[in-house]
Amino acid sequence: MTTRRFTNQQIDRLLRPKSVAVVGASDRTGALGATLLNNLVQYEFAGDIYPVNPKREEIAGLKCYPDVTALPEGIDCAVLAIPRQFVLDTTRKLAERGCGAVVIYSAGFSEAGEEGMREQLELGEIAAKHGMVIEGPNCLGCTNYIERVPLTFVETNMRTPPKGTRAVGIASQSGALAAVLATALHPRGLYVSSSVSTGNEAASGVEDYVEWLVDDEDTHVIALYVESLRRPKAFIAAARRARAAGKPIVMLHPGKSSKAQESAATHTGAMAGDYQLMKAKLGREGVIFADTLEELADITEIALRCKALPGANMAVLGESGALRGLAFDIAEDIGLDLIHLDDDNSPALRAILPDFVPVSNPTDITALGLSEPEIYTKVLTALLEDDRVGSVVASIIQSDPITSGIKFPHIIKVLEDGTFPKPLVFAGVDEGATVPEEYIEGLRKVGIPWFPSTERAYRAIARLADLAKRDLSDRSQAPLPVPGLDAVSGVVPEYRAKALLGPLGIAFPESRFAADADEAITAAEAIGYPVVMKAQAAALGHKSDAGGVILNLKSADDVREAFTRMYGNVAAYDRSIVLDGVLIEAMGRMGTEMIVGAKNDPEWGSVVLAGFGGVTAEILKDVKLFTPDLGVEQVREGLLSLKQAAILKGWRGAPALDVDALAELIVQMGRIMAGNPRIREVDLNPVIVHPKGEGVVALDALMLVEG
Amino acid sequence: MTTRRFTNQQIDRLLRPKSVAVVGASDRTGALGATLLNNLVQYEFAGDIYPVNPKREEIAGLKCYPDVTALPEGIDCAVLAIPRQFVLDTTRKLAERGCGAVVIYSAGFSEAGEEGMREQLELGEIAAKHGMVIEGPNCLGCTNYIERVPLTFVETNMRTPPKGTRAVGIASQSGALAAVLATALHPRGLYVSSSVSTGNEAASGVEDYVEWLVDDEDTHVIALYVESLRRPKAFIAAARRARAAGKPIVMLHPGKSSKAQESAATHTGAMAGDYQLMKAKLGREGVIFADTLEELADITEIALRCKALPGANMAVLGESGALRGLAFDIAEDIGLDLIHLDDDNSPALRAILPDFVPVSNPTDITALGLSEPEIYTKVLTALLEDDRVGSVVASIIQSDPITSGIKFPHIIKVLEDGTFPKPLVFAGVDEGATVPEEYIEGLRKVGIPWFPSTERAYRAIARLADLAKRDLSDRSQAPLPVPGLDAVSGVVPEYRAKALLGPLGIAFPESRFAADADEAITAAEAIGYPVVMKAQAAALGHKSDAGGVILNLKSADDVREAFTRMYGNVAAYDRSIVLDGVLIEAMGRMGTEMIVGAKNDPEWGSVVLAGFGGVTAEILKDVKLFTPDLGVEQVREGLLSLKQAAILKGWRGAPALDVDALAELIVQMGRIMAGNPRIREVDLNPVIVHPKGEGVVALDALMLVEG
Repeated sequence: MTTRRFTNQQIDRLLRPKSVAVVGASDRTGALGATLLNNLVQYEFAGDIYPVNPKREEIAGLKCYPDVTALPEGIDCAVLAIPRQFVLDTTRKLAERGCGAVVIYSAGFSEAGEEGMREQLELGEIAAKHGMVIEGPNCLGCTNYIERVPLTFVETNMRTPPKGTRAVGIASQSGALAAVLATALHPRGLYVSSSVSTGNEAASGVEDYVEWLVDDEDTHVIALYVESLRRPKAFIAAARRARAAGKPIVMLHPGKSSKAQESAATHTGAMAGDYQLMKAKLGREGVIFADTLEELADITEIALRCKALPGANMAVLGESGALRGLAFDIAEDIGLDLIHLDDDNSPALRAILPDFVPVSNPTDITALGLSEPEIYTKVLTALLEDDRVGSVVASIIQSDPITSGIKFPHIIKVLEDGTFPKPLVFAGVDEGATVPEEYIEGLRKVGIPWFPSTERAYRAIARLADLAKRDLSDRSQAPLPVPGLDAVSGVVPEYRAKALLGPLGIAFPESRFAADADEAITAAEAIGYPVVMKAQAAALGHKSDAGGVILNLKSADDVREAFTRMYGNVAAYDRSIVLDGVLIEAMGRMGTEMIVGAKNDPEWGSVVLAGFGGVTAEILKDVKLFTPDLGVEQVREGLLSLKQAAILKGWRGAPALDVDALAELIVQMGRIMAGNPRIREVDLNPVIVHPKGEGVVALDALMLVEG
Repeated sequence: MTTRRFTNQQIDRLLRPKSVAVVGASDRTGALGATLLNNLVQYEFAGDIYPVNPKREEIAGLKCYPDVTALPEGIDCAVLAIPRQFVLDTTRKLAERGCGAVVIYSAGFSEAGEEGMREQLELGEIAAKHGMVIEGPNCLGCTNYIERVPLTFVETNMRTPPKGTRAVGIASQSGALAAVLATALHPRGLYVSSSVSTGNEAASGVEDYVEWLVDDEDTHVIALYVESLRRPKAFIAAARRARAAGKPIVMLHPGKSSKAQESAATHTGAMAGDYQLMKAKLGREGVIFADTLEELADITEIALRCKALPGANMAVLGESGALRGLAFDIAEDIGLDLIHLDDDNSPALRAILPDFVPVSNPTDITALGLSEPEIYTKVLTALLEDDRVGSVVASIIQSDPITSGIKFPHIIKVLEDGTFPKPLVFAGVDEGATVPEEYIEGLRKVGIPWFPSTERAYRAIARLADLAKRDLSDRSQAPLPVPGLDAVSGVVPEYRAKALLGPLGIAFPESRFAADADEAITAAEAIGYPVVMKAQAAALGHKSDAGGVILNLKSADDVREAFTRMYGNVAAYDRSIVLDGVLIEAMGRMGTEMIVGAKNDPEWGSVVLAGFGGVTAEILKDVKLFTPDLGVEQVREGLLSLKQAAILKGWRGAPALDVDALAELIVQMGRIMAGNPRIREVDLNPVIVHPKGEGVVALDALMLVEG
């Protein structure tokens, strides 16, 4: 089953057109149709150009067409530089004439209200019917830098990558961001292959362009700006292919804050999705996340220039003790692992460094490099040769042309003489120092990115090392169908949820359902006192609030009295609720309260959330999301990265807790969710985690099943 | 009482010398004495230069002296570019000849072991005896850019600030950092007044140079790199004077991470202090903290260029919806307040913007500015005129010279035409865009800092707004002497600590001390059952571990039995412990457990820590430090910024807690600590916080008093 809506050939008609119609062509300075036409002419677009303008015979020496119906059949791409009200009709006519792709600049569609939304849906229908690609509406167009096709009204710097150069393909839901990113990459000597601004995505979205970029042999890294992925499954499929093709995807996606989510909704009419769920799912596909525009460009640079992406465990050559301390602080702040190196564990480095310089990381070579610059080559090579090291940074005081002239050549020499399967990154510490451009170019030529500040190099490497630290192997186990699920729908009361999930290995306290007081006593005697009694009804969401939980019943009399009292409590709470009966349950042992919640998202699929429960669960949000393809070991690692993980490991003399059992529960819940798409949610709250070897027990189970 | 060790006149002999001896003068390229001499000659040092070198008659056309004893008496400053082993003797001779200041480049003193430490102490003694300033050892020297005095062996770019220009004075415990900072500031068109590398601080430290910089009329901002403040009280006094003089202090101080603290110890032999305590104390003096070198330079730029420092509530003019979302995410991440502006609350902006642009913050003016660039002037002026706004950022897509040419002049015009008591900062969004230098200079000329990226502008403003948000007013109340404190020393047992602190308003449960079982019963009857019994002895640190706490005693029999059992428990736990007796206490009501700890630091003075207690107290470190000059309202605000503050405000239907009573307790503890320097520590753990109006009660009290 394919999730692709467009073949490469269809998208080629947008990004590799042989013919382009400029609808709304103009020669009035500042008009969109004028800048677009100017871009095409200036960069000598190799195909045919068809200006459309009813008021003109000719523009820029090209014959003008009065209307799109006058155009030849089968033009590859038409760019609409016309007011909003003409867009729908014009698009329909173009589709009927076999036009392959339409670029719509105009805003005022889904982001502008109902009328706009309706028209946008119609655009989508036209595209679907005719197999036509629509870029936009509300977009800045696209540029293919390889084939020199600038279908944009933005002033474009047509930097075509020289043959054999690695280049980044850009897809962005913001036209401004697409333009800004190209502007930021070009001065770094980096190249863009193609850039697409997807706007409101009436018919084709980032997913579709990522698929195309994966197959585009001139694209080596894919950089994305996304506010909302409209087709998560299609995106996941595309990301998976990108990973298989060895093309890293770097994504900037605002939405961590609720305000950013609101902002996206008003910006391109996108509905804000669940940011954490998106991140959990895409993280599993190897997508690298940037937090800022700076980071997006910085990560892209490393991915483009270096032979391989950074692994975990960064090593640094530095020249000042002060920068060591700062490195430790930054590393802790951004979660970057500085590998521990010392005299004992690093004989190669020990042999290179003079006695007064201890081996350490960052290694502080002091001002020694000024008099013995070979030390740069030697130390950096030794660090790159060290299998434990995942990336190497040269953190250098550049000062002035003379100082740079001493240092740079010996750093460049490292990659002139050697090839290593990990990045070497140059990071200046004195931003603004006068460094002759030729030195920076010298670094880049051999594959060493130059960063103006050490902080930025560290941040970009941290994001990339985060990818390296993820175990992306698929440990999916067979989905688990829930026998008897067909019989339930809507809110499932606790006793039925437990009856459904218990046989699949979710541990609950021993319990029995009882419909009257006598049954309750029989149940209690079978289980053994003391017991808990819990009121059971689908309509009773919050048992405790209704007096529907009575603890510590120690005798038949206790049970009988509690039964009557409980029915009274619930009736007093809400007389419309009719109880199915009560659940009699063994009293659980005390332990650490955690929460486990599972969800089948209609777009993203299954996910299991787990974390610390109790009063502060929602305040501290100390939870992690786990996808169902994770194995017990991977889940375990995730649990041990919770903020309060120290509790799991055995805090202050308390025994270590049964993290394995908790991880197994989470994996099992993932299998259950994956096996039963009808289940929308399961909440196990609390899950009591006992000491290692003693397991976990879910005290309550709430289940919501599609009707 | 002054904390100053040096008068300005004494430090003038280092930083404004009329005569300089170069001990170890040389003309061998690369020799320290050669670069230093070259700096002095090249920049035409206006005073007398005395080269000292026993092997030469003349260097660089200057008469050479064979030895420091051959020098004239009373030379202002001698710079020692000589090996370590000659330093101590040479310094002594110079002191005896009335030399005012010595600069010592050599390393190998306190950072290198006992011998070095001993010699460094001797250097300190010589300085103290003769009133001589010693810069270093282990330093890079100093440069006075105003009077053109380069006493450093680093290649120096002698950029003298033009008359009337604001300049930054630098003091740094790392020579490399001092040099790097100047290198980073100069290309931004910023000026340094004087820069001092303090090294190991044998005799004079950053505190001393800050005092001098406060009085230096050419210094307007003070930038510091510090690994350890050796004389906190002196630094606080200097910082206070700087604040009074309107000279912001910006400080970069690694040490947030424990590894950074270790690193500082090996770097300049400094002992790592308590980082959080340092930050709490200096925060009260208005010191601004930078986290990275980038931030240090960025904050310095705003402080130098802008008419005033940013207040809280930033407003942004932007040109893309995408950048709005990113701004929200960054703001939340770094704790920056974006003011809420909308159509209703901002009529001035509403009147300026066209209908299709809603008033918001960031305001997204779309690409409108390209066709109507006056909008930049109008919107920015309106934002600056808005009293609610503390700083304004223009977040601009610069693209290319043409685009910049449209936008920059209309932004520059804002401060050409108006003066506002808050900063306007220009932040590019497309780093690397080709912007003609004249536009950037145009901004700077009118006092608008230019930042290459929006992230960096936001970060720098966040640090500065953090200062604005601090209520720095001194709400100190009279210190509270503890009557009877003279009678105790060492570890004070709970019953005595409670007896000492209770009368001063620290609330404890009602309790009575009892030396035998009968007294215990009498006490219990007086208090009323149920009661708690707690074993009392200074030597018994952890009562609970020893079975020294028995709860819920309900009768005389209970008490008698418990008394015997408790003595048995403690004897079994540690037979060397002799109990004073037991404390009989009323059972407390349940409530939220917090901790309050107070400390008299020998260097920094009094501080009170408060936060959430319980199992996760140490894991989550959800605590704040409060200095004794804070009033109840300020402490209250601090408590409400704890991570779990939601609990204090009333979480999920629970009542709001008595934050006022907790704040009062903290203030009272501050007064007690300030009034009794002999008290080293008091731990109140737990402190039970009851609902609003119902107060707080400390259940336990541990007290440590100097012997």
